[in-house]
Amino acid sequence: MTLRMNINADMGEGYGHYDIGDDDAILKIVTSVNVACGMHGGDATVMRDVCLKAKENGVSVGAHPGFNDVWGFGRRQIQMRPSDLEYLVAYQLGALAGMAAYAGIKVTHVKPHGALNNMAAVNADYAVAIGRAMKTVDPSLWYLALSGTEMEKAALALDLPLAREAFIDRMYDDDGNLQSRTIPGSVIRDPEVAVERTLRMVLDGEIISVNGKKMPTKFDSLCLHGDEPTAIAVASAVRKGMEAAGIKVVTLPEMMAG
Amino acid sequence: MTLRMNINADMGEGYGHYDIGDDDAILKIVTSVNVACGMHGGDATVMRDVCLKAKENGVSVGAHPGFNDVWGFGRRQIQMRPSDLEYLVAYQLGALAGMAAYAGIKVTHVKPHGALNNMAAVNADYAVAIGRAMKTVDPSLWYLALSGTEMEKAALALDLPLAREAFIDRMYDDDGNLQSRTIPGSVIRDPEVAVERTLRMVLDGEIISVNGKKMPTKFDSLCLHGDEPTAIAVASAVRKGMEAAGIKVVTLPEMMAG
Amino acid sequence: MTLRMNINADMGEGYGHYDIGDDDAILKIVTSVNVACGMHGGDATVMRDVCLKAKENGVSVGAHPGFNDVWGFGRRQIQMRPSDLEYLVAYQLGALAGMAAYAGIKVTHVKPHGALNNMAAVNADYAVAIGRAMKTVDPSLWYLALSGTEMEKAALALDLPLAREAFIDRMYDDDGNLQSRTIPGSVIRDPEVAVERTLRMVLDGEIISVNGKKMPTKFDSLCLHGDEPTAIAVASAVRKGMEAAGIKVVTLPEMMAG
Amino acid sequence: MTLRMNINADMGEGYGHYDIGDDDAILKIVTSVNVACGMHGGDATVMRDVCLKAKENGVSVGAHPGFNDVWGFGRRQIQMRPSDLEYLVAYQLGALAGMAAYAGIKVTHVKPHGALNNMAAVNADYAVAIGRAMKTVDPSLWYLALSGTEMEKAALALDLPLAREAFIDRMYDDDGNLQSRTIPGSVIRDPEVAVERTLRMVLDGEIISVNGKKMPTKFDSLCLHGDEPTAIAVASAVRKGMEAAGIKVVTLPEMMAG
Repeated sequence: MTLRMNINADMGEGYGHYDIGDDDAILKIVTSVNVACGMHGGDATVMRDVCLKAKENGVSVGAHPGFNDVWGFGRRQIQMRPSDLEYLVAYQLGALAGMAAYAGIKVTHVKPHGALNNMAAVNADYAVAIGRAMKTVDPSLWYLALSGTEMEKAALALDLPLAREAFIDRMYDDDGNLQSRTIPGSVIRDPEVAVERTLRMVLDGEIISVNGKKMPTKFDSLCLHGDEPTAIAVASAVRKGMEAAGIKVVTLPEMMAG
Repeated sequence: MTLRMNINADMGEGYGHYDIGDDDAILKIVTSVNVACGMHGGDATVMRDVCLKAKENGVSVGAHPGFNDVWGFGRRQIQMRPSDLEYLVAYQLGALAGMAAYAGIKVTHVKPHGALNNMAAVNADYAVAIGRAMKTVDPSLWYLALSGTEMEKAALALDLPLAREAFIDRMYDDDGNLQSRTIPGSVIRDPEVAVERTLRMVLDGEIISVNGKKMPTKFDSLCLHGDEPTAIAVASAVRKGMEAAGIKVVTLPEMMAG
Repeated sequence: MTLRMNINADMGEGYGHYDIGDDDAILKIVTSVNVACGMHGGDATVMRDVCLKAKENGVSVGAHPGFNDVWGFGRRQIQMRPSDLEYLVAYQLGALAGMAAYAGIKVTHVKPHGALNNMAAVNADYAVAIGRAMKTVDPSLWYLALSGTEMEKAALALDLPLAREAFIDRMYDDDGNLQSRTIPGSVIRDPEVAVERTLRMVLDGEIISVNGKKMPTKFDSLCLHGDEPTAIAVASAVRKGMEAAGIKVVTLPEMMAG
Repeated sequence: MTLRMNINADMGEGYGHYDIGDDDAILKIVTSVNVACGMHGGDATVMRDVCLKAKENGVSVGAHPGFNDVWGFGRRQIQMRPSDLEYLVAYQLGALAGMAAYAGIKVTHVKPHGALNNMAAVNADYAVAIGRAMKTVDPSLWYLALSGTEMEKAALALDLPLAREAFIDRMYDDDGNLQSRTIPGSVIRDPEVAVERTLRMVLDGEIISVNGKKMPTKFDSLCLHGDEPTAIAVASAVRKGMEAAGIKVVTLPEMMAG
């Protein structure tokens, strides 16, 4: 049986005259994209464009909802009533579905953006609010979350489809959490190191912590951060390395099809 | 055979802590609402709330897309590329569909807001942009427009369902256009006058201009402006007057079912 | 020697077509206003209007800077880099000075709004950021803060003019902090009770906690919250009560002139 | 007597995580910058940064107020009441003065941005609204405008200091107006051509139209558009060409000092 793996990255975070990220390069590497929905970045024109390009490249599309904060690019933590957050997420899911209609495609997963992702990882109210929005707007959406987070728990509690992700270019601590970017060495910028680590994760099903601890882990998707200057080189090497090792790189729906 | 008529009004234009309009009173009179979609007013929480209340009251829900301009309340004309406008409208249609999922209802029509409505009435590019967004996101949506406008033409050209509206509380000029509000007497504030005029429009199928000219007209919905202090009294009298005359007041989908 | 006291209230928090608060009624009662600066509410047109009315009424004007969040009305806590917050506050101070030029007046104090006020009360980085903005844009501005907060400490540390405030319509706990509004009885809605408590505060220089504990306190201004339905009645009674007791109600600069 | 000339360019149009334009390169060429004021681009952090860098480079700072439209980057025409526009401009002038305090400098001119500049060139109400804002906030500000526009007339009518600009990299028609960018050849991308034309403008005081018509013209500043890929090369060549011809390149206040 062929081993398979999904690769996801954020995309479509430009806004009007403002460009950010190299969407075209990333679309050649990943098999799923998390599309900004207009609140932290990504206007309607950008969203449509990304949906069309994703379809062309055979890449599956997920929503990447964020806080309502273009100035902060969704990276500022905002304290909201969970119900307001829930409706804000539902709004973004609906909006992206509208834009995906231009490509004749369906949105298939949800991954929160930036500060919302960080907060929902540890705050059950936020994690559940996101899940409730998904359940209302489209209960077939995959909740794409890091193992061990409140989002994983929320997906299970709400009986939502759950897809787990791991990171190509980040060091983990001994508890299986991502080591903060502020600690030197936390971001992996050497393509060879990234390839070796990724193959071990995919082939052996285990993560190696920064201290060498082996932790068995289950995941369905590898996350690529597009905002490091080395990201494209690292991700491209990882994709080639996986394919050379006989791992088929597939969309998230294909991955989850079992 | 029973005569029927639809009544529509704008709704859900509050924003966060800001309230505007008396939505609860209007919901008791109208049978269709045009719901703001977050760009000129109406945040996700408000949108969900209006959808739930509309369902409770047996009122059908339409989208009321506007320019991206909360400060100007969508009443400032903005020159955009028609394609950007189209996607902005599609975004709002998708977003409202997401919020309508909370009520388990379908959005059934589209009526542009404020300056967008005024511009699309006379600007074919804008009228078509709105229609193209509808055609892409949900081609079963009724395009609710004033007779004789570019929006009517766009709906016909794009083969979209078309519903025509007339005005309860506004004077028409001899060309069948609304007389500008800046001309004294253009807004009808006397309930008796409004009832008499409305019955003639519905029963005789004709509009009387400010100069007494009779103009045969076809329309499916009567529009109520909620922002005059006398609006509720006028609209309430009109609804009662219609019912007393044996006219059944119905939702837009019921009206269009023929 | 005549006893004197200042009364301050928030004002000018409307936005475009959205009105909020009864500015005209409040302007007849208070002697200083905290004017919203366009980020959480209060657009340029509103700001100018409030400045003109404040001058007409002989009321001094302060800036009421808030988070950049009209939707949340500045009541959502937002985590920002202190330097970004500092510049955001400086921006608002400059903007209000621009609008005050229409009235030919000078802005004389600063009181943060909503969530920013709450955060700066306990977060030294935020309190200092606000103070640094004041120091740069206009070091003669009074920092209007509750006793015992980080804002008071920041004003002292930065050697900024400091004015302390107390609350007309709120209960204090035994530590001298405001009791949360979520505890029943925390908001004083009975004008007689408010008058009695205020006179004791002003005449005896002490606050009585909810448990009867007497706490000596120093303050220069009494804060009125305009957003309770009973606020106008309570504030009006307090002002009359103070004047009947021979206390002169003065602007903040007059109060601080000693 | 030494010939002198000012060169101005727009700057500080980034927003949060979004960068745009090569501010550092432009600052080495121009002697005055038009700084975005937060409405179409340019947040408080960016504004402060540009003011500090301008001071370091001995470059004078002007305000570059725009419509309240980050999404449209201020390039969409918006119909506003002239009074609302006036206050919106005054707000931005005040805000930039606040940020300039960080550099200990004074804002010395105003040049409207994008669609606002285009509208104010031909719409007297808009041109006067901008002038009235300047007159109120700081009547010593230079109104930087193209000759023959309504802005020039407004400055004269309001008795505001007036500085006229001409364009380095654009073709003029026979009426002295800029030829639309949509006509091929309207943007000058060849540094040699730009140098030759600029020297003739500065040394001979005349503009050559696209058809060869010579038009005497008076101007105090040359405008550089930073958004063409060739802009830096063209502008750099023009500056060197002027200096080689013995023309001293000076700040706007130095230029206007006579």
